[in-house]
Amino acid sequence: MQAKPIMKVEFINPFLTSLMNVLETMAMTKLQPGKPSIKKDTTARGDVSGLIGMAGPQTKGSLSVTFEEKLALSIMERMLGERPDSLNDEVTDMVGEITNMVTGGAKNILGDNGYDFDMATPMIVSGKNHTINHKCEGSTLVIPFTSDNGKAFIEVSFDILSDE
Amino acid sequence: MQAKPIMKVEFINPFLTSLMNVLETMAMTKLQPGKPSIKKDTTARGDVSGLIGMAGPQTKGSLSVTFEEKLALSIMERMLGERPDSLNDEVTDMVGEITNMVTGGAKNILGDNGYDFDMATPMIVSGKNHTINHKCEGSTLVIPFTSDNGKAFIEVSFDILSDE
Repeated sequence: MQAKPIMKVEFINPFLTSLMNVLETMAMTKLQPGKPSIKKDTTARGDVSGLIGMAGPQTKGSLSVTFEEKLALSIMERMLGERPDSLNDEVTDMVGEITNMVTGGAKNILGDNGYDFDMATPMIVSGKNHTINHKCEGSTLVIPFTSDNGKAFIEVSFDILSDE
Repeated sequence: MQAKPIMKVEFINPFLTSLMNVLETMAMTKLQPGKPSIKKDTTARGDVSGLIGMAGPQTKGSLSVTFEEKLALSIMERMLGERPDSLNDEVTDMVGEITNMVTGGAKNILGDNGYDFDMATPMIVSGKNHTINHKCEGSTLVIPFTSDNGKAFIEVSFDILSDE
């Protein structure tokens, strides 16, 4: 089989809606999605990110959800009623949980459409102003989000290996 | 099936030997492994990291390989004969490639032992002094490495879901 990776814009929508649902349900936080774009450089800088790998025989990829520190802290505050001082273990646990839920929601939708994959375990990166590069064969799509408490970004690289 | 994640210390060895082989072969860089330990906090700070997810029906996990900036630059210099000024795209490409090779090497060994998984696509994080948290059910193992050009770390979280 000659692997021919493709990435369609519609593959990102399940991740987008999943993130918006999760944050609205868990933390009464409304995100306004901006325009999706193909990532040309590493412009999505943030302070805490949840990253997860997706892998299957015909599908592989990666997702990252990046938050500004003040947005991550405000999500925690809305979930727990108390605002942490910093990006502590509770915050990274929460970002990992969000990453799992967003990917799980998208996996169900994509699975119904014939794109099956298994989810790896999430990783959380903390560090002021870090950037993430998704190394895939195809393109990485980025969606910026704004909220009343700061910015977030989703980046998805999702290759379908086709034998056409 | 009741998932019961376990992590055995011997699962980290294939990643360790694979990283040492890759760097010695590709970049004439000898790493001295330190003592593996179970990660209790996020002490492994670095400047550039390659992260990858591993996922299969019975196995899931994540790997990160973290380099100090000066070590990453020196690896590039030894591979290409020229030292980049900063952690540019060439360096992140190289870190992604190393991450793929290390995981591919470990996958072969672990597959021979009955632990099959698919590899996701790698992600590369750049940012001064960032830390990584692997969110798995079991433990995360860390191996520190020293070299004549700086430090590196491998962190592996590798859960075997057993139905015992």
